[in-house]
Amino acid sequence: MAGIWLNEDNSHYFFKRGANAADPDKIRDFIMQYRGTNVERMLLNGNAQKTSYVTKAGEIIYDNVTDDMIASERLQSFKNWSNAVRLLVERGIDVYAEWIKLLREINISPWMSMRMNDVHNADNTDDPMHSMFYKQHLDYRRAMHRDEKWEDRQLNYLIEDVREYHFGILREYFEKYDFDGIELDWMRFGNHFPVGYEDEGRTVLDGFMKSARELADEYEKVRGHRIEIGARVPVSPEYAYDMGMDGVGWALAGYVANLVPSPFWHTSQADIPVERWKRQVAGTGCLIAPCLEICLRQYAFPKCKNEFQFNSIETIRGAAHSFIDRGADAIYTFNYMDMQRYAYDDEGYKKIITETGDVESMKGKRRRHVLTFSDRRPEGVVSDEILPFELKKNIFAGFRIHTGNMLKNETRLVLMSFKDVYDLGENDIKVFINGERCEFIGAYYTENPRPIDTLYAWIVPKEAHKNGYQVIELDSGLDEAVLDWIEMLVD
Amino acid sequence: MAGIWLNEDNSHYFFKRGANAADPDKIRDFIMQYRGTNVERMLLNGNAQKTSYVTKAGEIIYDNVTDDMIASERLQSFKNWSNAVRLLVERGIDVYAEWIKLLREINISPWMSMRMNDVHNADNTDDPMHSMFYKQHLDYRRAMHRDEKWEDRQLNYLIEDVREYHFGILREYFEKYDFDGIELDWMRFGNHFPVGYEDEGRTVLDGFMKSARELADEYEKVRGHRIEIGARVPVSPEYAYDMGMDGVGWALAGYVANLVPSPFWHTSQADIPVERWKRQVAGTGCLIAPCLEICLRQYAFPKCKNEFQFNSIETIRGAAHSFIDRGADAIYTFNYMDMQRYAYDDEGYKKIITETGDVESMKGKRRRHVLTFSDRRPEGVVSDEILPFELKKNIFAGFRIHTGNMLKNETRLVLMSFKDVYDLGENDIKVFINGERCEFIGAYYTENPRPIDTLYAWIVPKEAHKNGYQVIELDSGLDEAVLDWIEMLVD
Repeated sequence: MAGIWLNEDNSHYFFKRGANAADPDKIRDFIMQYRGTNVERMLLNGNAQKTSYVTKAGEIIYDNVTDDMIASERLQSFKNWSNAVRLLVERGIDVYAEWIKLLREINISPWMSMRMNDVHNADNTDDPMHSMFYKQHLDYRRAMHRDEKWEDRQLNYLIEDVREYHFGILREYFEKYDFDGIELDWMRFGNHFPVGYEDEGRTVLDGFMKSARELADEYEKVRGHRIEIGARVPVSPEYAYDMGMDGVGWALAGYVANLVPSPFWHTSQADIPVERWKRQVAGTGCLIAPCLEICLRQYAFPKCKNEFQFNSIETIRGAAHSFIDRGADAIYTFNYMDMQRYAYDDEGYKKIITETGDVESMKGKRRRHVLTFSDRRPEGVVSDEILPFELKKNIFAGFRIHTGNMLKNETRLVLMSFKDVYDLGENDIKVFINGERCEFIGAYYTENPRPIDTLYAWIVPKEAHKNGYQVIELDSGLDEAVLDWIEMLVD
Repeated sequence: MAGIWLNEDNSHYFFKRGANAADPDKIRDFIMQYRGTNVERMLLNGNAQKTSYVTKAGEIIYDNVTDDMIASERLQSFKNWSNAVRLLVERGIDVYAEWIKLLREINISPWMSMRMNDVHNADNTDDPMHSMFYKQHLDYRRAMHRDEKWEDRQLNYLIEDVREYHFGILREYFEKYDFDGIELDWMRFGNHFPVGYEDEGRTVLDGFMKSARELADEYEKVRGHRIEIGARVPVSPEYAYDMGMDGVGWALAGYVANLVPSPFWHTSQADIPVERWKRQVAGTGCLIAPCLEICLRQYAFPKCKNEFQFNSIETIRGAAHSFIDRGADAIYTFNYMDMQRYAYDDEGYKKIITETGDVESMKGKRRRHVLTFSDRRPEGVVSDEILPFELKKNIFAGFRIHTGNMLKNETRLVLMSFKDVYDLGENDIKVFINGERCEFIGAYYTENPRPIDTLYAWIVPKEAHKNGYQVIELDSGLDEAVLDWIEMLVD
């Protein structure tokens, strides 16, 4: 059993509810939908570069927005967001304070989550989400020599002014809100230092986290209860360390009460090494809550051409099952908010927030374990994005998938697709799992998510049934074949 | 300052000395060459599949060898080895017992090292190095479904008989020899379990290491002094764990007094994450001694066509310097034995064993940090063998190299070669290090090791001088270019 820690982002409620956002019933209903679900902690995120609450330390979402900036139709949701926040302010409602009260009422632990370095739409220098602090300090960007991706335009935390500005916002969260804990979200986005300066960065963030903990100590006296600090960090202790976000070190030093190993956004990563985190923070009491992203891709956007690239309840079960068997204390969900109709309908959402992490409820149900990759890594390190993979004729190629523990009577299939292959023969590719040959059973249909080419299935023989990692090997007899998708389906 | 832990393998002395191996002066001289060097511990390895000493538990090297087996000229060194061991036996000399005494005489700590799963020449089922135990149990091989490489024919330690056979040999080491410690060499060779069964294997090896420690406890009473257990394991704590050789776990459980993170053989790996090992064994007293292999390749044999593929004193200094700055307690050398004339002459050898690890002696001397890779990894995991690397036009490609700490007045160059490129222009490829542009200075010559194509050099500007990891980025303007070699030279 592991509860859900659910992240509610800084814009979703406002642009989904629009003019209704300030309606007290809507404010209440929004929280009440989580009553009786498996959500045990809710993390309310109130900022990206700008805030969705009244601020002195930062800049509220509707400030410094000109008509030109929001002329595009594309920005309708920004306008809804901005107008909803303005309406709340006009009516004197602090929606976060209300939600915190409501969460306490239904025994969900109220947390907040601060995005430490958000660069949504960084390619558009006139984007209304950008703060004046960001716009006025182009020289604060972390990568001055390279300008390929949004994250090259993240702020450089080696600069004291950057740290002080964000610490001011953090302090204001404490001043304004009475939460059980606050998370420093270092994965929105995940790069905080100039290329090559991650070691220096680690020292600086260690200091920042120490100060955050001291701030919590100070406010524990004000609030009269324990206030915890959490952090979202890269998927593995090694990546986290080498990217300057030393989660393990923060736990050992007593700065954090929990860590959330997280992908960035391109894809959820079902193979988060929870057991490594747990061992390394052993004795500190620090909880480990691996993060499910809503996206699921076998390789990075935009190379991925599949239309539907989101986790389903079946892939969520797969990852959650594996996480729990590896020792997860909770399942953290990012971008799993209500009315995300591109990914699930209302009933589907209810199922996700009720079932995820609840071992009894998930037990025996169909689940899928899809091979994805880690979408953030230290600069200069080889990517584990292995698909699409060019198979060499008659040379073994291996892939591993963590399934967690298995029940005895479950059927296990290996599902794979190959680029532009629609007529695979039963002996074209020999498939082994844990050293045993799998029998080919032909084309196979699954619901989304799925690859664009035909999916083929192989049965895992009884002799190969085991828990934990499953190693799937292909020995291709074809002159050319490119593996595009690989998963294990358990039913 | 870090001393050298030098591994002397089971055959080298015998086939180099041949008929002189049993000469008491040669036996003595062999050890005395290390007097006054930086060697602080010597690990005498007495076995592969067969032993180079009289044995009841195993099989001595010259047993069960037919004339047919050694008919080939290629086997002259085997004959020298075998004959030398026979001569020693005939004369009643136990060379290992002699060496242990001599090592104590010159204050070098005498250790032994047992190879746990050696499969030299596994493709030749009639090889005279193979034991009857190995030959009579073809069903004990770890990979029954795959037969691509020597290591697929390693023994499967999930089988009790395999464990018992080897534990018998280990016990005999204790019975016969009075050493300060014994190392279990799990990296000759590095795979001990069927594909997919590394987790089960970890449990089994945990038990084996526990028994090894208990054996040492028992013999401490016999010998009247402390006897330590060490182990050679994969390069990183994560790879070690996922391959079933949980070095960190063994340290936490008190089974081992030291760990030697080691490549297999294809190449030395200068980027061993010593700091991760040190942090994870903190408080146990376990020492970390990263291993230098003699080979140095940018990608695996036989793809690597360069004639000379060995570390030089300059690349050794590079790796040792970095290891020490990352916290290494000693530098372990594997295959650095005397008279290896393909790699160094006698004077060169003297320099290596005197200077390596001695910070004062290495200081300010020219050193080279070459990007290599990890030549062993868990089944189904993506390789970090990144070279040769196809550069995409105008897209940044990053590589990182750990140099350890730097002195202020050193010159730093980035050296690179590109497949079949002999006329690189100064603006064809923009090179950055730690975010700063490097100036192109043209073709550059180094001694071996070096790539087969022209090596080009760029100067690292002062603004980019830093310690630890150096991230080198290439922004290529060429339609096609394949990076074949990358290093940092410090002088």
